[in-house]
Amino acid sequence: MIDDLLLSNDNKIIFLILDGLGDIPNPSFNLQTPLEAAKKPNLDGLAAKSGVLGRIIPVDIGITPGSGPGHLSLFGYDPMEHEIGRGVLEVLGLNMDLREGDLAARANFCTVRDGVVTDRRAGRIPTEQTERLCAMISGSVREIEGVEVIIKPGKSHRFAVIFRGAGLSDKLTDADPHKDNKPFAYTRARSEDADLTARVVNGFIGAVMDLLKAEPVANAALLRGFSSMPDIKPFTEKYRMKALAIATYPMYRGIAKVLGMDVRQEPADYDEAVRILKENYNDYQFFFFHVKETDLAGEDGNFEEKVKAIEEVDRIVPAIYGLGPQAMIVTGDHSTPCPLKGHSWHPVPLLIVTKTGETDGLAFHEKNCVRGSVGTIYSKELMPAALAHGMRLDKYGA
Amino acid sequence: MIDDLLLSNDNKIIFLILDGLGDIPNPSFNLQTPLEAAKKPNLDGLAAKSGVLGRIIPVDIGITPGSGPGHLSLFGYDPMEHEIGRGVLEVLGLNMDLREGDLAARANFCTVRDGVVTDRRAGRIPTEQTERLCAMISGSVREIEGVEVIIKPGKSHRFAVIFRGAGLSDKLTDADPHKDNKPFAYTRARSEDADLTARVVNGFIGAVMDLLKAEPVANAALLRGFSSMPDIKPFTEKYRMKALAIATYPMYRGIAKVLGMDVRQEPADYDEAVRILKENYNDYQFFFFHVKETDLAGEDGNFEEKVKAIEEVDRIVPAIYGLGPQAMIVTGDHSTPCPLKGHSWHPVPLLIVTKTGETDGLAFHEKNCVRGSVGTIYSKELMPAALAHGMRLDKYGA
Repeated sequence: MIDDLLLSNDNKIIFLILDGLGDIPNPSFNLQTPLEAAKKPNLDGLAAKSGVLGRIIPVDIGITPGSGPGHLSLFGYDPMEHEIGRGVLEVLGLNMDLREGDLAARANFCTVRDGVVTDRRAGRIPTEQTERLCAMISGSVREIEGVEVIIKPGKSHRFAVIFRGAGLSDKLTDADPHKDNKPFAYTRARSEDADLTARVVNGFIGAVMDLLKAEPVANAALLRGFSSMPDIKPFTEKYRMKALAIATYPMYRGIAKVLGMDVRQEPADYDEAVRILKENYNDYQFFFFHVKETDLAGEDGNFEEKVKAIEEVDRIVPAIYGLGPQAMIVTGDHSTPCPLKGHSWHPVPLLIVTKTGETDGLAFHEKNCVRGSVGTIYSKELMPAALAHGMRLDKYGA
Repeated sequence: MIDDLLLSNDNKIIFLILDGLGDIPNPSFNLQTPLEAAKKPNLDGLAAKSGVLGRIIPVDIGITPGSGPGHLSLFGYDPMEHEIGRGVLEVLGLNMDLREGDLAARANFCTVRDGVVTDRRAGRIPTEQTERLCAMISGSVREIEGVEVIIKPGKSHRFAVIFRGAGLSDKLTDADPHKDNKPFAYTRARSEDADLTARVVNGFIGAVMDLLKAEPVANAALLRGFSSMPDIKPFTEKYRMKALAIATYPMYRGIAKVLGMDVRQEPADYDEAVRILKENYNDYQFFFFHVKETDLAGEDGNFEEKVKAIEEVDRIVPAIYGLGPQAMIVTGDHSTPCPLKGHSWHPVPLLIVTKTGETDGLAFHEKNCVRGSVGTIYSKELMPAALAHGMRLDKYGA
């Protein structure tokens, strides 16, 4: 429906996404949420003067989303229709250069004895060990059957692999027994056109085993989450806006790249992020400004840290909104409540700063968002609302 | 679902539709909305005593509807499935007698020089000129290839055309370059069964050019929005209620006719409209009472006028509700916020006056409607709610 209504103008829309923003009343903090407790005069000032509030449900009622579905839905893609594979997310998170046609996989070093995986995580070997092993593998295994292999170490026993070549398929079973003390498993093709890919992946696994056979603990690798760039309509095309992503964490720049947004260099801090935003403001209509710290604090269950993260963001809000966008959306990709120390299904508080003069006249936090005039909507419905407030949609029907 | 649950009784349901009713907090008027500022003791009295509140979303979140989709959805037709064409809306708005099988088109007088449309609006010639030219054309061009042609002048350079005959199709391209200084365009058939219709329309266009060749400015006509009566299940059949439409503006009587509602004469004012309602009250179960003035004031951005329009309606509410309907619904087809001077995507305030004894105990305006017990629903879901309150729906399942 949106397709036929999109207007071409230079109105700007900014998405200020505080990862894991949503929280729940915290019994240890007077039943406040971090967003409620934070001193955020700039956000609350904008909310009270020209903000409307609501809540977004990332995927569906009761569903806790990962980062992939959380962000896909924010940008108006149905997260149940589209998927960013786990391998893809992993290589994006490691800042690897994923290209169309590449096959990505998550990988673990593991311990194998007599064909049985005795420890899927190789005793959680330290990151430096993983770096050493990855360097060794990279030095010897550059290609299998003409398919280039690129690997990069992650944290602890984890690493990621990109296979680059023609005719690769992601129709593969995991090369992972998924439990300790099960037989070591190679991958198998789930359809005929994945036969070559299965041979390549298993060739790689075999080469790694040969290389590591003298290692005392990490003597094999498990690969899983085989996936390629999703076939997804680029954001720029879908909404006829040039889009720029600004994010300190690689995974979010990666997701933006998957959606066809432009990405600038990694900002060192919020001030540099704002500087990148300013420098590129004239060349784009849509800006995805991602903040990770709220989610990290939520994952740690650290209420004070989450409050501090929100207050830090509040400090840069005047510089961002001062650029004069037609609409600024402040929300999260999902909730990460401190009491739960992880992602959750709770609706995420939403603030739309408007230029229409309308306002709910309320400070921005979960409890006010329940009674905001935007209501509780699905995250995938946020883009149409943002486009409307951005004055980028024509009337439907006469 | 509704189909199998419809009860046959004489319970009455009145839809009091204030066109463009919804608005947003207005910074120039103490952040009130017109509905909030209006002194409307009758509506607020009913709302507080026996009203439940909510909001309706005409088409979808962020989508600004035209009058067609706005009304279709009010009456329970999915506005994304059904469409009333632009030509149809235009002839209805001019109070022309559109019949099944007719082909309707919007038309402009324009200026053509050497085959190029130099001015699509013929210098916006005054209405009297358009009336003169239409009379001239009507006098000479009565039929083309056996197809009757009926034309009627509108405002300024606009007029409308009905083609009446067997085998007409609306599968035609616009006979309009849509921009100045482009070559004059005839229509083309978009499917084979529209070949005859294309010949007829182009024959008409040619005849008009011949007739107007001596005119200094308006020497040709552009036709667009070719459309016929939509194939839509009549309201009366869909809901097993005899339905009467009362509206001062032709377009809304026209939409009602398209839906198979009965229509009485054009009321001169609200009092006559109420009189028509009273006179016909026993013969119908459903009444669509349309008020245009709220939308006009919104389009003008005139807050005080919109307040006044609402207060004027409030004056006739006792006479309407005094008839004793089982349910009276007061809402709009869309929002027309004064600050935006046009239709908008904002949910529309909804009041259902009930006979169950239930009430939200709140005055009727946008802010209270956010927290009303009906919630925020899609307009197409309003009819089931109205039928329920009208005690016209049986239980589903045992």
